[in-house]
Amino acid sequence: MIFKQLFETDSSTFTYLIADRNSGKAVLIDPVRETVERDLQLLKDLELTLIATIETHVHADHLTGAHSLKAQTGCKIAYPAMIKSSCIDIGIKEGEPFEIGQIKLNPLYTPGHTDHHHAYLIETPAQKLIFTGDALLIEACGRTDFQSGSAEALYNSIHNKIFSLPDETLVYPGHDYEGRFITTVAQEKVRNPRLGGGKRKQEFIDIMNGLDLPYPRKIDFAVPGNEQCGICPDSAPEEMKGLCSIHDQG
Amino acid sequence: MIFKQLFETDSSTFTYLIADRNSGKAVLIDPVRETVERDLQLLKDLELTLIATIETHVHADHLTGAHSLKAQTGCKIAYPAMIKSSCIDIGIKEGEPFEIGQIKLNPLYTPGHTDHHHAYLIETPAQKLIFTGDALLIEACGRTDFQSGSAEALYNSIHNKIFSLPDETLVYPGHDYEGRFITTVAQEKVRNPRLGGGKRKQEFIDIMNGLDLPYPRKIDFAVPGNEQCGICPDSAPEEMKGLCSIHDQG
Repeated sequence: MIFKQLFETDSSTFTYLIADRNSGKAVLIDPVRETVERDLQLLKDLELTLIATIETHVHADHLTGAHSLKAQTGCKIAYPAMIKSSCIDIGIKEGEPFEIGQIKLNPLYTPGHTDHHHAYLIETPAQKLIFTGDALLIEACGRTDFQSGSAEALYNSIHNKIFSLPDETLVYPGHDYEGRFITTVAQEKVRNPRLGGGKRKQEFIDIMNGLDLPYPRKIDFAVPGNEQCGICPDSAPEEMKGLCSIHDQG
Repeated sequence: MIFKQLFETDSSTFTYLIADRNSGKAVLIDPVRETVERDLQLLKDLELTLIATIETHVHADHLTGAHSLKAQTGCKIAYPAMIKSSCIDIGIKEGEPFEIGQIKLNPLYTPGHTDHHHAYLIETPAQKLIFTGDALLIEACGRTDFQSGSAEALYNSIHNKIFSLPDETLVYPGHDYEGRFITTVAQEKVRNPRLGGGKRKQEFIDIMNGLDLPYPRKIDFAVPGNEQCGICPDSAPEEMKGLCSIHDQG
């Protein structure tokens, strides 16, 4: 297995490259449109074939690089199956592992940040790796106050699908805003200020309801744009069109 | 590979169990005398044979469980080869991998906390794992103001042997005092307050020289005791003898 953790600075998003060394097949989890050229160069340098882009959910904070990567490589575009759009090639569901050569990526249905969010679990000979998207972050978690968010659903997802994994499980989040890259199940059970120390569901819901967060900067074009696999939508507000279409490709 | 990250609360020490699933052979890196019974139970539960205890260095903050584990399992005791003592069975050196069945543990000479300190690197199919002992800690590093410490040597060790590894390398430290369990090379390059952001050698030396740390609680019996593989030494001060010998076994 080849594994790279990549970072996009404007939205503080992690993209993960996972490839099977033997077959040369690769996927990108949560690619970002701004870093498509970087990702293509890396695939070229490592002599890998991108077979698919895979989203954890319809992002509200950045446009996915899926459309652009497909246009330039011919890869498939995978989304949680609950999202219906003509641009999507593969619908992801829990219980249906996605195969990257000999590597199995196991989708885990983890609603709460959105109602369709999936995390992805890989079991290596040494450890389990979980890509938690915007469900569990390092000492934080995804917002539950927009799109189809639900604090109760997120609490259940994190406890039933993530905290139930072995303590040593490596947790790779969808974002970090403080220069951190990794955590473990054990570490979040201890240190996560919203969930750690055995916090109960109602405490978590109260914390999430009290966050008073700003309106997301890119949400008005990112959500409809990501429903179209990463194209700047016609419905984008005029003042956002410049930002939205800067990197349109393919 | 079977991998467990274990924690001893009095000295905040991580012990690592690493085993080869096929052969059932296991080692413990930096076992602690207070948690020997826990370690023996885990080996039994997992049906593993302890072939060796392996130290990163002669600890000053706890007694190793090596002597006690050998007495109860017949395992070998491995130390950096620079430490000479009749209780040691195996001398560890950089360039001479230690084999646990099919797993190779690669010693890296990393002086600075002590002049004989070694870290241990394992390359799995997915990632590299480095057990950094008291060289690099999470957002910290080992002290350089006692035993054979040297801030200059530690700076060189961290830069040449650890920060030169790929960004995704998993860093498992010898201690953490704040509930953290893991970091990566990339994360420490960004966030470590003594080393991150490209700090130069003189800055690091000035930081280490200015720490003004308290005298280590157990050092007077721990250092001579660990030179005897974890036996409370006759030279232990009277007021320490109770604390020192509580857990004497084997």
